[in-house]
Amino acid sequence: MYNKKSFETLQNHFGERWSVSPSDIKNHGRSESYFPIYAPDAVVYPITTEDVVFLVNICQEAKIPLIGYGIGTSLEGHTAAINGGICVDFSKMCKVLEIDPYNMSATLEPGVTREQLNTELRHSGLFFSVDPGANATLGGMASTRASGTTTIRYGTMRENIQSLEIVLANGECISTNTKAKKSAAGYDLTSLFIGAEGTLGLITKITVKLHPIPELVTSGVVAFDTINDAVKAVQDITFTGAPVARLEFLDEKSVEAFNAYSKLNLPLKPHLLFELHSSEKSSPSDIGNFKSACSEHGGMQFQWSSKEEERKELWALRHKGYYAILASAPGKRAIVTDICVPQTELGKAVLETQKDISRSGISGPILGHVGDGNFHAILLVDPEDPKEMKAAKAIANKMANLAISLGGTCSGEHGIGIGKLDFMHEQLGHAWNVMGHIKEALDPSNIMNPGKLVKKINYF
Amino acid sequence: MYNKKSFETLQNHFGERWSVSPSDIKNHGRSESYFPIYAPDAVVYPITTEDVVFLVNICQEAKIPLIGYGIGTSLEGHTAAINGGICVDFSKMCKVLEIDPYNMSATLEPGVTREQLNTELRHSGLFFSVDPGANATLGGMASTRASGTTTIRYGTMRENIQSLEIVLANGECISTNTKAKKSAAGYDLTSLFIGAEGTLGLITKITVKLHPIPELVTSGVVAFDTINDAVKAVQDITFTGAPVARLEFLDEKSVEAFNAYSKLNLPLKPHLLFELHSSEKSSPSDIGNFKSACSEHGGMQFQWSSKEEERKELWALRHKGYYAILASAPGKRAIVTDICVPQTELGKAVLETQKDISRSGISGPILGHVGDGNFHAILLVDPEDPKEMKAAKAIANKMANLAISLGGTCSGEHGIGIGKLDFMHEQLGHAWNVMGHIKEALDPSNIMNPGKLVKKINYF
Repeated sequence: MYNKKSFETLQNHFGERWSVSPSDIKNHGRSESYFPIYAPDAVVYPITTEDVVFLVNICQEAKIPLIGYGIGTSLEGHTAAINGGICVDFSKMCKVLEIDPYNMSATLEPGVTREQLNTELRHSGLFFSVDPGANATLGGMASTRASGTTTIRYGTMRENIQSLEIVLANGECISTNTKAKKSAAGYDLTSLFIGAEGTLGLITKITVKLHPIPELVTSGVVAFDTINDAVKAVQDITFTGAPVARLEFLDEKSVEAFNAYSKLNLPLKPHLLFELHSSEKSSPSDIGNFKSACSEHGGMQFQWSSKEEERKELWALRHKGYYAILASAPGKRAIVTDICVPQTELGKAVLETQKDISRSGISGPILGHVGDGNFHAILLVDPEDPKEMKAAKAIANKMANLAISLGGTCSGEHGIGIGKLDFMHEQLGHAWNVMGHIKEALDPSNIMNPGKLVKKINYF
Repeated sequence: MYNKKSFETLQNHFGERWSVSPSDIKNHGRSESYFPIYAPDAVVYPITTEDVVFLVNICQEAKIPLIGYGIGTSLEGHTAAINGGICVDFSKMCKVLEIDPYNMSATLEPGVTREQLNTELRHSGLFFSVDPGANATLGGMASTRASGTTTIRYGTMRENIQSLEIVLANGECISTNTKAKKSAAGYDLTSLFIGAEGTLGLITKITVKLHPIPELVTSGVVAFDTINDAVKAVQDITFTGAPVARLEFLDEKSVEAFNAYSKLNLPLKPHLLFELHSSEKSSPSDIGNFKSACSEHGGMQFQWSSKEEERKELWALRHKGYYAILASAPGKRAIVTDICVPQTELGKAVLETQKDISRSGISGPILGHVGDGNFHAILLVDPEDPKEMKAAKAIANKMANLAISLGGTCSGEHGIGIGKLDFMHEQLGHAWNVMGHIKEALDPSNIMNPGKLVKKINYF
């Protein structure tokens, strides 16, 4: 337990927005993933940047860990209070502060969720592109450098954040960038804090970049005999510069689960789900080019639509995918893996993973953002069954090692947290030490989400 | 003068690739800009990463400054040896090591120039998009986070580098990233070293991202009555999501210089020069949409072509722009300013700058990357005339302050070097201190391009 007097000072300041109730702290120590509960000592709900500055100053003085919290959709234990401390729940900082259509940006508080933002943008002709599936908060998405289905065209959070307001470990508040579209004025601090998982400071404001809503959206689905055929089609499609906005892969097992869940009759073969963002005029040739790239590699049962209702139905497949897969094994929970490999290694990586899963006796459908080389196996386990848990963790570890050996990364989009720490040295070598140096420089007392992403090492 | 023994060790190691000849060191202390000559004590020409590691280890031991050097096109004194030391000329590390079409990337040594790279790519169907005008080296472009005419569509160096190999101040060599298209594994070191101006380490290898050559390129030119009309047209064009790959602004004075230099007869009005990257099928509607967005704001004398010869002729206008402007004032040299403001402030910023220039009595045509909000005044001065130099510097300073006051940046693409140091605190506040902390952490002896981008301050 940390310094009692500091806790009293904070309780006085935050009043009803300070909680040490057992249910509250337990809930904030839980996550969607398989990690045990690591409850914080208290939960605080700031409503202003000044609140966060006050909090940081007290906690810096008393060396109390601070763990930022959005909506709890992290999959790698980012919000686990492994050393106790205070969970900073940003759910009350949830205002869209400004929509600036002419500069194509919006400024918002970190507790705003992705769906909330797009709802508030609905009359602007613009949208926010990053879609990790879950209705995460923008603060959480920034902190994990989230990406998802639209990354192939619009990029990850790295490409879609203009600027961040950060409260640093020393209580100073900075803006990482101006509102100009580009800048060559010094180190790229915006990029540094995106994906830093709250280890360098707390995000209190975000300016995101927006995109014009495309004139015509076409969604579709196409089957292939093998994953390698699908991957080769993807390479050809990418090479043509086609306006592909989403390009998702489903393996046979995923299709089986989807068929059962959504009462469909798709062939039990690898599939691509796609979305093209075109203009009315270019759409027919875009679809034609896409279709012929698929046909070259045996693409079959090509279905598509530009009508909103039908499009939504097709994509519901993917959006409900996680639940369809969970429903395929009642009573089980999911361990979701997340690797990303160079495009050319994707077929190999998926096939090896399928073999490992098949040998393990665990069910593990695979789906992913094939245009980025990023895929997930949804390993279905009984968390109470140590044998299944061990087998699933072995598969997850093997996937991470496989990705690294193929020139890829142990995390495509879910981040490191505590779940992937063991792969950082293997993947990054000395570069991981550099991250440690930076952490040490900006947070020498290690109060900002300690134990995540970097390890306390002997830097010098 | 630094430690003699270290210099002897280096001379023995590098042999003919070590130079202390007065002409060599003087040439490497010069730049394209108005700064005095700051000559290094020696110039070294590494040919391998191991050479650079050897060099850094010796210089770390003896605390000798190391200044990376590409081809000398810096405009802000980045390569000035203000504390002496060794200039690391990368011109002999100029091989394209690998072109990987399926992963759409190329790996190269830092001395490769932009034009050389695109020449080597000519049979691949791919191209490297960043075009700052000068035929700079990729190492220099990475170090200054260069951008240019195509940034509106393809991004700056930040969006076009996959990974960097860096030799750090402690002699360790790291790769900042894998070959996977995205990664959520730790801090974004790639972005940190892009634009670090050699102050955190020396770049010894670069993996860049490539793009498919577009099916059809259309170039054109259109005149407007006022800069504000042109800016409004640009906003409308951007909002439509049109496939604009270049969008350049020329003011009346620039047009006058271009007319004289290229024997043209363009109306003496603000102009936009543009390039669209389309497919054959979508091109007519893309051009139609572009033209009507311009017409809405009084765009006139619209000319365009998709024929290579005619396109090149139109763009020669822009590419020869700098020389045309220099030729308009024989005997003068140029001080090139570089500010970037939010799109909505662009008209105001250009008009205020034109007024200031006009009051000064100096000639200063304005051109810029209007789609990014970035523009340059080419201030024509006699470097021997202290009054003109003073007036030009006053204009440049006023522009930087104006950009900051409008929510923009004192450097859009040229970087900080020694030329823009005085604006960093005003623009960035505490964020500049954060940069200082990072510099201190990664280069505690301050041997990596000392005196540039950050100032030695009392960090704690």
